[in-house]
Amino acid sequence: MAHAWAVVTEDSVGAAVEAVIAAGRYASARHWVPATSGNFSVRIDETRLAITRSGVDKGALTPADILIQPIDGPLLPGSSAEAALHVRRYADDPGIRAIFHIHGLYSTVISQAHTDSGAVVLAGWELQKALSGITTHETAVEVPVFANDQDVAALSARVADRLARPTRPGQSRAPGYLLAGHGLYAWGRTAKDAIRHLEALEVLFSQIITLRSYRI
Amino acid sequence: MAHAWAVVTEDSVGAAVEAVIAAGRYASARHWVPATSGNFSVRIDETRLAITRSGVDKGALTPADILIQPIDGPLLPGSSAEAALHVRRYADDPGIRAIFHIHGLYSTVISQAHTDSGAVVLAGWELQKALSGITTHETAVEVPVFANDQDVAALSARVADRLARPTRPGQSRAPGYLLAGHGLYAWGRTAKDAIRHLEALEVLFSQIITLRSYRI
Amino acid sequence: MAHAWAVVTEDSVGAAVEAVIAAGRYASARHWVPATSGNFSVRIDETRLAITRSGVDKGALTPADILIQPIDGPLLPGSSAEAALHVRRYADDPGIRAIFHIHGLYSTVISQAHTDSGAVVLAGWELQKALSGITTHETAVEVPVFANDQDVAALSARVADRLARPTRPGQSRAPGYLLAGHGLYAWGRTAKDAIRHLEALEVLFSQIITLRSYRI
Amino acid sequence: MAHAWAVVTEDSVGAAVEAVIAAGRYASARHWVPATSGNFSVRIDETRLAITRSGVDKGALTPADILIQPIDGPLLPGSSAEAALHVRRYADDPGIRAIFHIHGLYSTVISQAHTDSGAVVLAGWELQKALSGITTHETAVEVPVFANDQDVAALSARVADRLARPTRPGQSRAPGYLLAGHGLYAWGRTAKDAIRHLEALEVLFSQIITLRSYRI
Repeated sequence: MAHAWAVVTEDSVGAAVEAVIAAGRYASARHWVPATSGNFSVRIDETRLAITRSGVDKGALTPADILIQPIDGPLLPGSSAEAALHVRRYADDPGIRAIFHIHGLYSTVISQAHTDSGAVVLAGWELQKALSGITTHETAVEVPVFANDQDVAALSARVADRLARPTRPGQSRAPGYLLAGHGLYAWGRTAKDAIRHLEALEVLFSQIITLRSYRI
Repeated sequence: MAHAWAVVTEDSVGAAVEAVIAAGRYASARHWVPATSGNFSVRIDETRLAITRSGVDKGALTPADILIQPIDGPLLPGSSAEAALHVRRYADDPGIRAIFHIHGLYSTVISQAHTDSGAVVLAGWELQKALSGITTHETAVEVPVFANDQDVAALSARVADRLARPTRPGQSRAPGYLLAGHGLYAWGRTAKDAIRHLEALEVLFSQIITLRSYRI
Repeated sequence: MAHAWAVVTEDSVGAAVEAVIAAGRYASARHWVPATSGNFSVRIDETRLAITRSGVDKGALTPADILIQPIDGPLLPGSSAEAALHVRRYADDPGIRAIFHIHGLYSTVISQAHTDSGAVVLAGWELQKALSGITTHETAVEVPVFANDQDVAALSARVADRLARPTRPGQSRAPGYLLAGHGLYAWGRTAKDAIRHLEALEVLFSQIITLRSYRI
Repeated sequence: MAHAWAVVTEDSVGAAVEAVIAAGRYASARHWVPATSGNFSVRIDETRLAITRSGVDKGALTPADILIQPIDGPLLPGSSAEAALHVRRYADDPGIRAIFHIHGLYSTVISQAHTDSGAVVLAGWELQKALSGITTHETAVEVPVFANDQDVAALSARVADRLARPTRPGQSRAPGYLLAGHGLYAWGRTAKDAIRHLEALEVLFSQIITLRSYRI
């Protein structure tokens, strides 16, 4: 299977690093990555990704804050433990080129409220159409919710297992998931798609939460 | 009937394109057009409008993102399906020079809550006076709400039909309407008026929603 | 009685105009004056004030948007009807050098909810101390609320009448008042004081409203 | 005990002053210090700190707005009364290098609601890990809440007394505390840590408050 990124030069590394830096800056400007939270990665090629180090301010990234992580290898020194969640997604889905994780207020709050049900289901919102593959507001879109877990290997396996299974009949699955009390992961076939998915999901959750305060 | 724009040069095209770009940037800075949502148009003359293509970031428009759409003709390739809603309004009301559509949080939320009643009625808010033709907070202003519909031709006809009918006695009608779970359309006799209407309506809805959370 | 501004040169006019422009820009950046709402004035001397014209964007004022209004004379052409509220306050209290009026979200919402009681009473908030003359959070600070009225002369008289009367025992009065469903007026002995009062009151109202949504 | 700042030159003074100015600017940009509220200090060495004067705009500090306060001495002229809270913490904990105090909306609101219980307890939020010493979301983190008091000496003694006592079994204590109806104090081993603690706590409180409005 030939991907657009099958032919790689060192320019691919630089482009991926730049895309990570730009995504971090975008997320920081929207207050989605408070207090050095969040992590951001972009695929370089079939075997490598560029990913943020642990503990750095995502709004002021420099190339020195980005690790070149092999997909088929242990996490590099300086990695966030959550890098394992990125690596596993890239390994499982070769079509993914970018994965971004944020602690947006509405993502985090809604994740906490839906831990037991295991999903937020979006229905009836036009903005669902900003998610790749969704062409109408009339479908129901499942955003999986996982209990948070400091054992990231176990969490990563649970995520992979669930994403490998089909959705319920009549539902589509969003290009992302929530960790309860923690935040949102979203991905895309390009970095631009992944950013659009972050924004669409965070805003959709803000609509649901605000509607609740109006309807009661 | 002579309009100010009856004499058209190619400068009219450039001015309309610039006005669309400026409106998109304004809306994006206020987070009203998340994830490439929204669409923006400005009338060029009796027969044409400048309108955003489908799927572009409204905060970073360039002239290449704007289509010159005939009012009396099929949608151009690259159009958003919703362009039909714009074209019909321009055709029905020659006084309209700009139509802007946003997915503002409060517009979207309030639209969802008022789908069944078919209207949000504004009353008692001074900011109503920012809507052209409204001179007092003491009048009631109807903002029609339509169920969202992926069949835009049908939706456009429903909108046109309702806007052609008079309001209830004692009510005025806002220069805009809501699509449920979708967002706000507003227009004006100038691009500046249309922006002011967007802002006034989004803020009025935020006042209503916030008041609810305080009064309960 | 000699005021600091007793000796006036044309520089006083320029300084007042600049202070009005700066205040409008500050308020606009905080989204307190949506859709050309709000109005701003600064005293020039015992007999004149600089005040914004009707209908202009307060975030982009130029000297041409500012009128030099006599305190003892009819409103100039181009005035907002509400200019009468400014003029009367300057006439009644020679210590006032600036009056700013905004449509802040929280001011507007809380005003609507307290129309019947006729006041918002602040108590137990440290930020009360940002209001001139308040030195402790332990006092109760009355912010009068008036029903909105398109008859500004009548409204102005009602405001003047109430502000001339003492507060209830044990209460202080804020350097400002609310018009129901409309917004906040605040003043100060300097433009800086008046801005600080706007900000303190809008934030205090946001604290009260947010606390309600948490406590229920 | 040798600290990194045991060897002091006048550069240490300049660096501390710069760090105070930068922290004020950061906080102001996030609307955490409305109406000249808040105060900010950075330790210079074992005996001195740089701290903001009373009543200045924290978003536009200059070196003239910063006092060089001895830890073992009376408050300097121009000090905020609350400077005593800073000085006492530096005296009690030589590991503290920066203390920042803000009036963030969510800190202030949650403090008011938890006055009687005397603490906000954080549990189940990933962002807790942004607090130094907290390595898992599974621990419970106590943020002490003190009744506000215009007698700052008495308040300072109450704070010192409680912080000297151990937490409840199974709880950790946050690097900060709340004053009811007033705001948040947070500190760190570096100015960067103290800023991260402010941000993490303010955002954690926003998550708790927003979740409440969704769950009801």
